[in-house]
Amino acid sequence: MKIGIIIGSKSDFPVAKSVIDVLNEFGVDFELIVSSAHRTPERTTEWSRTAESRGLEVIIAIAGAAAHLAGVVASETSLPVIAVPVAATSLGGIDALLSMVQMPGGIPVATMAIGNAGAKNAAIFACQILGVKYPEINRKLKEYRQQIKDKVIKDNEEVQKLLNS
Amino acid sequence: MKIGIIIGSKSDFPVAKSVIDVLNEFGVDFELIVSSAHRTPERTTEWSRTAESRGLEVIIAIAGAAAHLAGVVASETSLPVIAVPVAATSLGGIDALLSMVQMPGGIPVATMAIGNAGAKNAAIFACQILGVKYPEINRKLKEYRQQIKDKVIKDNEEVQKLLNS
Amino acid sequence: MKIGIIIGSKSDFPVAKSVIDVLNEFGVDFELIVSSAHRTPERTTEWSRTAESRGLEVIIAIAGAAAHLAGVVASETSLPVIAVPVAATSLGGIDALLSMVQMPGGIPVATMAIGNAGAKNAAIFACQILGVKYPEINRKLKEYRQQIKDKVIKDNEEVQKLLNS
Amino acid sequence: MKIGIIIGSKSDFPVAKSVIDVLNEFGVDFELIVSSAHRTPERTTEWSRTAESRGLEVIIAIAGAAAHLAGVVASETSLPVIAVPVAATSLGGIDALLSMVQMPGGIPVATMAIGNAGAKNAAIFACQILGVKYPEINRKLKEYRQQIKDKVIKDNEEVQKLLNS
Amino acid sequence: MKIGIIIGSKSDFPVAKSVIDVLNEFGVDFELIVSSAHRTPERTTEWSRTAESRGLEVIIAIAGAAAHLAGVVASETSLPVIAVPVAATSLGGIDALLSMVQMPGGIPVATMAIGNAGAKNAAIFACQILGVKYPEINRKLKEYRQQIKDKVIKDNEEVQKLLNS
Amino acid sequence: MKIGIIIGSKSDFPVAKSVIDVLNEFGVDFELIVSSAHRTPERTTEWSRTAESRGLEVIIAIAGAAAHLAGVVASETSLPVIAVPVAATSLGGIDALLSMVQMPGGIPVATMAIGNAGAKNAAIFACQILGVKYPEINRKLKEYRQQIKDKVIKDNEEVQKLLNS
Amino acid sequence: MKIGIIIGSKSDFPVAKSVIDVLNEFGVDFELIVSSAHRTPERTTEWSRTAESRGLEVIIAIAGAAAHLAGVVASETSLPVIAVPVAATSLGGIDALLSMVQMPGGIPVATMAIGNAGAKNAAIFACQILGVKYPEINRKLKEYRQQIKDKVIKDNEEVQKLLNS
Amino acid sequence: MKIGIIIGSKSDFPVAKSVIDVLNEFGVDFELIVSSAHRTPERTTEWSRTAESRGLEVIIAIAGAAAHLAGVVASETSLPVIAVPVAATSLGGIDALLSMVQMPGGIPVATMAIGNAGAKNAAIFACQILGVKYPEINRKLKEYRQQIKDKVIKDNEEVQKLLNS
Repeated sequence: MKIGIIIGSKSDFPVAKSVIDVLNEFGVDFELIVSSAHRTPERTTEWSRTAESRGLEVIIAIAGAAAHLAGVVASETSLPVIAVPVAATSLGGIDALLSMVQMPGGIPVATMAIGNAGAKNAAIFACQILGVKYPEINRKLKEYRQQIKDKVIKDNEEVQKLLNS
Repeated sequence: MKIGIIIGSKSDFPVAKSVIDVLNEFGVDFELIVSSAHRTPERTTEWSRTAESRGLEVIIAIAGAAAHLAGVVASETSLPVIAVPVAATSLGGIDALLSMVQMPGGIPVATMAIGNAGAKNAAIFACQILGVKYPEINRKLKEYRQQIKDKVIKDNEEVQKLLNS
Repeated sequence: MKIGIIIGSKSDFPVAKSVIDVLNEFGVDFELIVSSAHRTPERTTEWSRTAESRGLEVIIAIAGAAAHLAGVVASETSLPVIAVPVAATSLGGIDALLSMVQMPGGIPVATMAIGNAGAKNAAIFACQILGVKYPEINRKLKEYRQQIKDKVIKDNEEVQKLLNS
Repeated sequence: MKIGIIIGSKSDFPVAKSVIDVLNEFGVDFELIVSSAHRTPERTTEWSRTAESRGLEVIIAIAGAAAHLAGVVASETSLPVIAVPVAATSLGGIDALLSMVQMPGGIPVATMAIGNAGAKNAAIFACQILGVKYPEINRKLKEYRQQIKDKVIKDNEEVQKLLNS
Repeated sequence: MKIGIIIGSKSDFPVAKSVIDVLNEFGVDFELIVSSAHRTPERTTEWSRTAESRGLEVIIAIAGAAAHLAGVVASETSLPVIAVPVAATSLGGIDALLSMVQMPGGIPVATMAIGNAGAKNAAIFACQILGVKYPEINRKLKEYRQQIKDKVIKDNEEVQKLLNS
Repeated sequence: MKIGIIIGSKSDFPVAKSVIDVLNEFGVDFELIVSSAHRTPERTTEWSRTAESRGLEVIIAIAGAAAHLAGVVASETSLPVIAVPVAATSLGGIDALLSMVQMPGGIPVATMAIGNAGAKNAAIFACQILGVKYPEINRKLKEYRQQIKDKVIKDNEEVQKLLNS
Repeated sequence: MKIGIIIGSKSDFPVAKSVIDVLNEFGVDFELIVSSAHRTPERTTEWSRTAESRGLEVIIAIAGAAAHLAGVVASETSLPVIAVPVAATSLGGIDALLSMVQMPGGIPVATMAIGNAGAKNAAIFACQILGVKYPEINRKLKEYRQQIKDKVIKDNEEVQKLLNS
Repeated sequence: MKIGIIIGSKSDFPVAKSVIDVLNEFGVDFELIVSSAHRTPERTTEWSRTAESRGLEVIIAIAGAAAHLAGVVASETSLPVIAVPVAATSLGGIDALLSMVQMPGGIPVATMAIGNAGAKNAAIFACQILGVKYPEINRKLKEYRQQIKDKVIKDNEEVQKLLNS
């Protein structure tokens, strides 16, 4: 049970960190590679083509600007590929979002929100995919839901204190 | 092995048809419901909450405008939820796209392209999720890839004929 | 005479503060809850469904990103629901705005401007709704109008001093 | 119990028709005027300033392009003003939407979706405002909710027939 | 020979400063008022309606957000009205730009760029209007053109020094 | 008293027609040229540079796509230049609008709405500029205002008939 | 002297036709392939990698939606790659434009306008690149400029006839 | 073998620096001028018209806002013109991008990404154009590709260390 994370540039590592934190929480193993769709295309292709045989079950691709990385990876594997657009230019990430989400019919890429929220959700969604197969992950997802619920309730209590102070 | 499809309005059925065509090709069973996030919230909630116990393994939500459907479904299940934005207003679907893809951290929704391309890809992606668990679906995905490759090659041959005529 | 305020996350509290300041000025009572459309859906649903019976007459929902909160609340009550989009992502709030304002026909949500201007106006608009029923609020609204007029006139005087200095 | 409808141009009448249909269904009286913010400013101002004394309780303003109508009306009355942006230019209504919704703090305008969906919702929202004061309207709103629920359920049945045929 | 400047809020004064600097350079007299389209509508209307009789020949309106000010002024005078959109919200001024430029046929507003560049150009354009009537302003415009040409040439010389250092 | 109209392409002539109709109504003479900023730059430059000496007092430039025409004309004359963006591409005219309105400080271009509404307003605005100098045009502008007011009132009467039928 | 044209889908052939028409006019040879970045990645890679050795000197890539084609080709060759975005979705081509133009530093793609205008310009630009090397193409470019100038002058004459009729 | 760089304003020099750094790396000579499309049109026209006779083989134009510079240069030369849009206004550079890329058919401009990434790529693309003619540049381009590949591999190694620490 292992997830592959690919980032187009070292500068995307802080966003990848949001993925890793969730995977660690779920106890899901991963490998991470810095490899660009454009600067190291053979490496990206090779990594993607052999992903399934290396035991990866889901891939998360993180990139900004004209973010082709997820599409390029998806073209080389039939594993589910999740895309996280990064706000790396003056356009606030709408360029990366449209470059990822508007995939033409045939080769899907599952796109998340721009930036850290999307990275966190990419990790949770990867676990949801694993949860279809592995009952222990499915169980952990239900616990995780309870935790984020509890967090909202605790946040509410703190706000009530603020209001009454 | 069954997929749930939920559409926010009867007018979204033609888009759902693109999902169904692919699922039929893969021999994957499905159930489809028309249920709105806003007009029939209990029904949508109930359908989502019991999805897993009814044997569904992936959900595809299709909606336009302020498309809350996928997020509302995802809030009630830990199954993977795939979202297809529909161009149902004068804004060309950018409203539905942002309403689906920009989910805050915690409850992921995997968003596809606007309209039929997205619907087709939602079905393929659902099969990719199933393919992680079921080897026969994984095998069919590889055949499907070959088919769409062959289609491009055939398209190229037709274009060459056009050029030489 | 009481207004309900719901915020999707503790981080939206500073925006809610702009609502509260106006309500205090008008002497209108309120209750505030932190409850998410996605992370605590039952809680949000329950709070909304019982809002009328708890004596609430108007609801203000504040959220960012794929801001489903107002729509989810509106689907559970026939009280007027006012939405305030928050600029919580790299897209400057256009995502929250479109997620709130583009509600399909049947379940309305009254959307205000993004951020603090919208929050202030949500509170005034809530008072305008109350003003239809309660003459004292209607009277206060007219006084409030006078105050903001006087403020513009005073601002003009200050600018004239700047020009003549 | 009466609602005022103001449209900036005769060409907006088909959108106003969606408002009227709902008001007729709820048995709510209305008056409608064609009056432009820019071409007949005194008339618009006069109509707005005397709206309350004529017995109007809510105003719905419908306009396209640089849609100043709702803001201009709101500046002359403390009645709640609901805005419906119309897609009257090559920009698909985003111009009218931003011109209406981005009101600066002080003078609120409650904005609905672009076009007919927004017009329908403007009428329902106007009834929700009246429902705060008039129990019979509040009761009708609950019946209306039931009707639109029943419609979704009937739509679902029709789609099931399509699927099984 | 006098120009009127109207700003919707005291916070727009720094942008008005860019107008004033140019007018001072051209020796053109002006009056400036802080008056809002929405908070002080009568004052704005009165100021606009009497502008011509007070000897004003061109008006410059500066506002942000749902910037109705220029349109409201233009509806009350047949003097040329120049609009300067301000980036006053999280949307970077596109809201003010569309609210100003997309005026429906009949009542024109001449829109400049967002912010200080637009304010500077509004002043120059006002002088170009005056230049049609007053030969001395026309002559000063030609001198001004020479100055900005000379500035570019001097900037180029500085850059050449940078390159050669 | 003469106005120059320049269109970047023969395909913009229908938009120019909206300008001409208004100028004819005001009895203002004009000359029109088809000349491109890019395909016939010398011709465009020459026409602009000699515009004042040929007796032109205002220029209206109409163009679509990357609409440089107005800026190029303005760089060669100190006459006021009014720009009309045309929706000539799949982007609905936002490309032409931004290419015209976002002029950097120094060389102003007065931008109108996209398409026919903008063309009509460009002509009226040109007359407003002439009205500063020529009392008879100023008088006609006031009559024109009355006409468009009367038109709204007549439109209202027709709509009342529709409502009562 | 040969140019390569690659289109992502048979449906892009009409846009490619605008390229071919210009190349035929300039007497420049070409080869055209239908090959997708995602559905036939090896084929696209192979075609790009061997482009230079097959004697191609410039490549034109045409694609819509999340248009990765130009970037993928550019990652495999050091020949100049020109990109033509196609309006293939409900977003009018802004998705393809941003997917092509926003390439991160290192692997350039030279982007043209959306659709047929861009396709025509891609062909001319390819000839301009060839013109740097081949004097006969450079000479033809100067003739072509004259032709499009003459066309504008002829268009102007026709419009003058329209005006005088 | 020489490249011309033109910037519309001294403030664009830091972006031009990204071009220069790459050209120095490739040993390609250049000349740079500050000259505005609007403030110094004759100078810009003259520089462009004589570019070829001065031995320039490619031109790079850098500008922000309504960025007409590249189009104006391209209208005066048949050399290839590469455009770099700069984010110089509150709109994040989308204004400059559309002003550059949406050139109508006939006069192409090859547009790069907004800002420094685009500037770097403009320089590389200029070298790719030269590489069609000059084998030594073509060879250097292949070395450059190897360098940026090696950089990605080194970046990956550093990230692996981070992960294992």
